[in-house]
This record gives sequence, C-alpha cells and structure tokens, in this order.
Amino acid sequence: MNPDTDTRSRILAAAREMFHGRSYADVGIQEICEAARVQKGSFYHFFPSKRDLALAVIDDMAGDWAHGFVAEAFDQALAPVERLDYMIDAAYYWQKAAADIEGRMPGCLFGNLALEMSTRDDVMRAKLNYVFDKARDRFRATLDEAVATGALAAMDTEATATAMLAYLEGVILLAKTRADPDLILRLGPAIKTLRIEMSH
Amino acid sequence: MNPDTDTRSRILAAAREMFHGRSYADVGIQEICEAARVQKGSFYHFFPSKRDLALAVIDDMAGDWAHGFVAEAFDQALAPVERLDYMIDAAYYWQKAAADIEGRMPGCLFGNLALEMSTRDDVMRAKLNYVFDKARDRFRATLDEAVATGALAAMDTEATATAMLAYLEGVILLAKTRADPDLILRLGPAIKTLRIEMSH
Repeated sequence: MNPDTDTRSRILAAAREMFHGRSYADVGIQEICEAARVQKGSFYHFFPSKRDLALAVIDDMAGDWAHGFVAEAFDQALAPVERLDYMIDAAYYWQKAAADIEGRMPGCLFGNLALEMSTRDDVMRAKLNYVFDKARDRFRATLDEAVATGALAAMDTEATATAMLAYLEGVILLAKTRADPDLILRLGPAIKTLRIEMSH
Repeated sequence: MNPDTDTRSRILAAAREMFHGRSYADVGIQEICEAARVQKGSFYHFFPSKRDLALAVIDDMAGDWAHGFVAEAFDQALAPVERLDYMIDAAYYWQKAAADIEGRMPGCLFGNLALEMSTRDDVMRAKLNYVFDKARDRFRATLDEAVATGALAAMDTEATATAMLAYLEGVILLAKTRADPDLILRLGPAIKTLRIEMSH
C-alpha cells in the first residue's frame, strides 16, 4: 500500500472509532495521532483541522456503510418486506458486537454526530443529511418494490421510508441510553407497522 | 426570591439553554458564568463541576418538562388517541419556536445528551434513562386508556409506548439534521400506526 494512503487510512480508522465510541468534541488530535501512530505534522498534511478529519470520517464511513452494512442488510435476494427484518437484525448484531467488544453500545455514528453538531456546523449537517437521504432511498426502493409486487398496499413510500429511518435512529438512541442492544430486537420489527398514506 | 436560589436558577437556566443549543462538551464553565452573570467562585459553591451542573440541568428540565410540555401535550381532556396528535403538534411548536428565535432547531435536550454522553458517563445515562422511562409511562398510560375504552385493540402497551418514544426521538433527530421543524408535522402523525403485539 502507498505509505501516504496507509497513513491517511490509519488516521481515519482511529478517528472513526474514537468519535463513534465517545463524541466529536471529546476526542483530541493528539490522541488520534497516538492511536494512529502518526506525527502531528503528518496529521496536518492530510487533515488541516479536526473538522476536516470529521468530514472525511463521515464520507469514509458512509462509503463503507453503503457498500457493507446497508448493501448486506437490504439483501436483494430477500423479499422486500423480509429485508426490513433482516436490516433490524443487522443493526442489532452490529451494536451487540460493538457492545461486547468495547463494553458499551456506541449507537449510530451519523445519529450521534447529527445531534452533537447540527446546530454548530452546517457543512457537517449537510453531509449527514446526505447520508440519511441515501439510507432513506434504500428504504424507499424496498417499499416501492413491495408496493409494485402487491406485498404492501399503496402508500407514500418516500414519507414512510423517512419515518422508518427516523424510527431506526430513535430505537438505536433509546437502546444506547439503556446500554441494551436487545432493545433493537424487541422494538425493531415494529418498523414494518409504520405507514404514511399518500396525500392528495 | 432568596439570592442563593436566584443565583442557582440563573446558572441552571443559562446552562440549559447553552447545552441544548450546542452540546455538553462545547460549553465551558466560564461562558456559563458570564451568561448567568455570576462569579466562578459562586458557581463552584452551587456546582462542584460542569458534570454536576449537567445532572442538575437534566433534573430541572425533566421537572419542567413533566409539568409543562408533557402535562400539556398529554391533555387528559382529549380522547387518548387524540393526545398523540396533540403531543406531536406540541413537539412541532416547541421546536419551531426555538428555531424561529435562535435560528437553529435544537432538538430534544435529553436525546442530544443521551447520544453525546451515554458511552462516557453511566450516571448521566441512568438519569436520562429515568427521564425517558417517565415519558414512556405517559405514552403507556395513554395506550392503556385507549385499549380499556376500546378505542384501540389490545396490544403490548409497554413495548408500543417505548416504540412511540423512540419514534418521537428519531423524528426530532432527522428534523434537527434537516434544520426543518416541519418534518415533525409530516412524519409525526404516523406514530399512531406503530404497534407491537403481546407476546405469549
């Protein structure tokens, strides 16, 4: 691997884990450099500021998330409605594994940053919005397919998809507050009961 | 008013607004003292640390919330199911007013602190959990009444109430990320479609 790519990747990986497990404000550049085993001068070569790093972490995780968790969770081999159950299971196993390894449930990095930063940084907010819109589009495509095949009655699939994403974030928020990933399994399946009718 | 009570109240009010509009980590004791017009020595007389202050802010806001917003939103004069609509309207007007006055949508202080602090402070987490449990109990009492009067079919009212609270928090999270209080009005009413059956 190109040494520059490797250094940048190490910084991104360390920052992602630290921002996710703690918060944006709680993590300092010095400790990110220590965790990534890079000098501060090298850090600033790649990221002029902690904020530039956070924006890159969001891009990086959004890419991994879209191609990893989301692509797997919305498994095209499953019937559309079953994908919603599978997605809840995937969210549970993701949080459960993190809780088992790190001793705490980190929640959703995007949701965490959204609540911490939205009133203070419009660029970060816009970027998080974009990530949420992409996730909403996955829900929407699933609902559109379910409506097209007759598995679900016609509805406002965009609004319902947004509601489902909100519910997923809210369930993860409460589960994190309880430090109880099992709550995702208990509440998650009810995501299928959400429904917003088309307004005419 | 007792001068001590007044000083303490000014600190609490300033801190609540600043934590809510920004984040816990982003706000320093010095600026809280300036906003509250108190000396640092006086601050430490009431609150040995910023964390003690945050715990008091949660208690203070939870009290106001239970007796103000929640008591009003879950208006006993309304039929149980109508209370859910009224509660969504109240959440919308609360966030809309804050956005209009402060130029940004602050979201729910409890949800904000829960995502920022849950992995880092078990006492704060437990306190936020308690606040959420109290809110969940309001939803539950409403559902129990609706089931008892036959307005809704039997369900697992505790789990459904928890799901409704999760949804409310998630909708506020997405609305804050979009800086768009109107999303609460668009998505909120679907809270009534959430439903978790009793498991036997």
